[in-house]
Amino acid sequence: MYLARVVGNVVATIKHPFFEGRKLMLVQRLDLDHQPTPTYDIAVDDVQAGVGDFVLVFDEGTGARQILRAGNTAPVRAVIVGIVDDVEQYGIG
Amino acid sequence: MYLARVVGNVVATIKHPFFEGRKLMLVQRLDLDHQPTPTYDIAVDDVQAGVGDFVLVFDEGTGARQILRAGNTAPVRAVIVGIVDDVEQYGIG
Amino acid sequence: MYLARVVGNVVATIKHPFFEGRKLMLVQRLDLDHQPTPTYDIAVDDVQAGVGDFVLVFDEGTGARQILRAGNTAPVRAVIVGIVDDVEQYGIG
Amino acid sequence: MYLARVVGNVVATIKHPFFEGRKLMLVQRLDLDHQPTPTYDIAVDDVQAGVGDFVLVFDEGTGARQILRAGNTAPVRAVIVGIVDDVEQYGIG
Amino acid sequence: MYLARVVGNVVATIKHPFFEGRKLMLVQRLDLDHQPTPTYDIAVDDVQAGVGDFVLVFDEGTGARQILRAGNTAPVRAVIVGIVDDVEQYGIG
Repeated sequence: MYLARVVGNVVATIKHPFFEGRKLMLVQRLDLDHQPTPTYDIAVDDVQAGVGDFVLVFDEGTGARQILRAGNTAPVRAVIVGIVDDVEQYGIG
Repeated sequence: MYLARVVGNVVATIKHPFFEGRKLMLVQRLDLDHQPTPTYDIAVDDVQAGVGDFVLVFDEGTGARQILRAGNTAPVRAVIVGIVDDVEQYGIG
Repeated sequence: MYLARVVGNVVATIKHPFFEGRKLMLVQRLDLDHQPTPTYDIAVDDVQAGVGDFVLVFDEGTGARQILRAGNTAPVRAVIVGIVDDVEQYGIG
Repeated sequence: MYLARVVGNVVATIKHPFFEGRKLMLVQRLDLDHQPTPTYDIAVDDVQAGVGDFVLVFDEGTGARQILRAGNTAPVRAVIVGIVDDVEQYGIG
Repeated sequence: MYLARVVGNVVATIKHPFFEGRKLMLVQRLDLDHQPTPTYDIAVDDVQAGVGDFVLVFDEGTGARQILRAGNTAPVRAVIVGIVDDVEQYGIG
């Protein structure tokens, strides 16, 4: 899992039926100092996150499908699983 | 999932039978500003995408096989799952 | 598996139920000279590790779920599986 | 999948029995301009590729095992699945 | 799979029971010119490799568990599967 910021949504009319009615969130990975990095992912949301939120992203297929109760073969890999309140962090160089 | 541009096709006469009749699309990964990066993948298409299209690529094996209804052990990992109309994006630095 | 230092914890009130009562540890990956790198992960703990500890992190979903006896579909990928006493190392350039 | 050039073979007398009688091919990943990159893999061959060939490499475990009809738990991840005749490519910057 | 050099062992008193009696080998990934890179992994050994050996490392969970006959959910991902005698290599730039 990694820390990320929700920075947008992807709009696609033509898409796989699994994605109908699901918001595709653009999440930007943060570094250990909570600064944005160039790395992003397109995730499905499980915790009602919104643009600008500081979130926790889980990115492994088998676990992601379980989180979404989506059957064990659904096309999902990255899921927003938490909204971060605080990171208690020590001695990061 | 990530944002990509379809930039070509791969032609291979000698190949695994699974790929017979399937177009192998060369997709170039885009960064958060939608600019091309040096990273690419060779994907199977599920949404009738063409060269030049701005697409959504899913890249996890188990989910990819389900999208293509290809049996749970087919040799596929990256699939084009959507054609992107718009990315609503905020505050990307 | 890789060597890491535990550098903090992530606090999230809104999160997936699986994470209730589990501490989310922020682990910073170390290089071959045991120096910190910019790479981190958010791991679940299996060995009572604390902040500052030099640990061994396992990062594959299927194995991670088994370690935690968490069912074969739980949302977990990185787990702290050992506290490192020593690394016997030779000829690292 | 990615584009690669076969650049050699690995010779190992002491090895896992699965690899007996199988050629371990050293494949060098190519970039979008078909130039060699520093990235390589050691792959099993499914299409009678030889040194110097321009090939298509598939690199996901579950699919790789199916390609080789090797049982669903064999120690294989990268497989040469095609010999590339041509890449029809447009507008690569 | 990739080429690596065994450069040490990790000693951990407090660890997951699976690792009791198994040597945790520190392996340093080599590049195409067989030079050491900064990338390492902590692997389990299947071929009686020792420090200094030039080895072949397999790094996918499902296959790794089969190699070790360790049940299909054991916490293992990287395994030393061969001792390299020679790499027949051509035209590496």
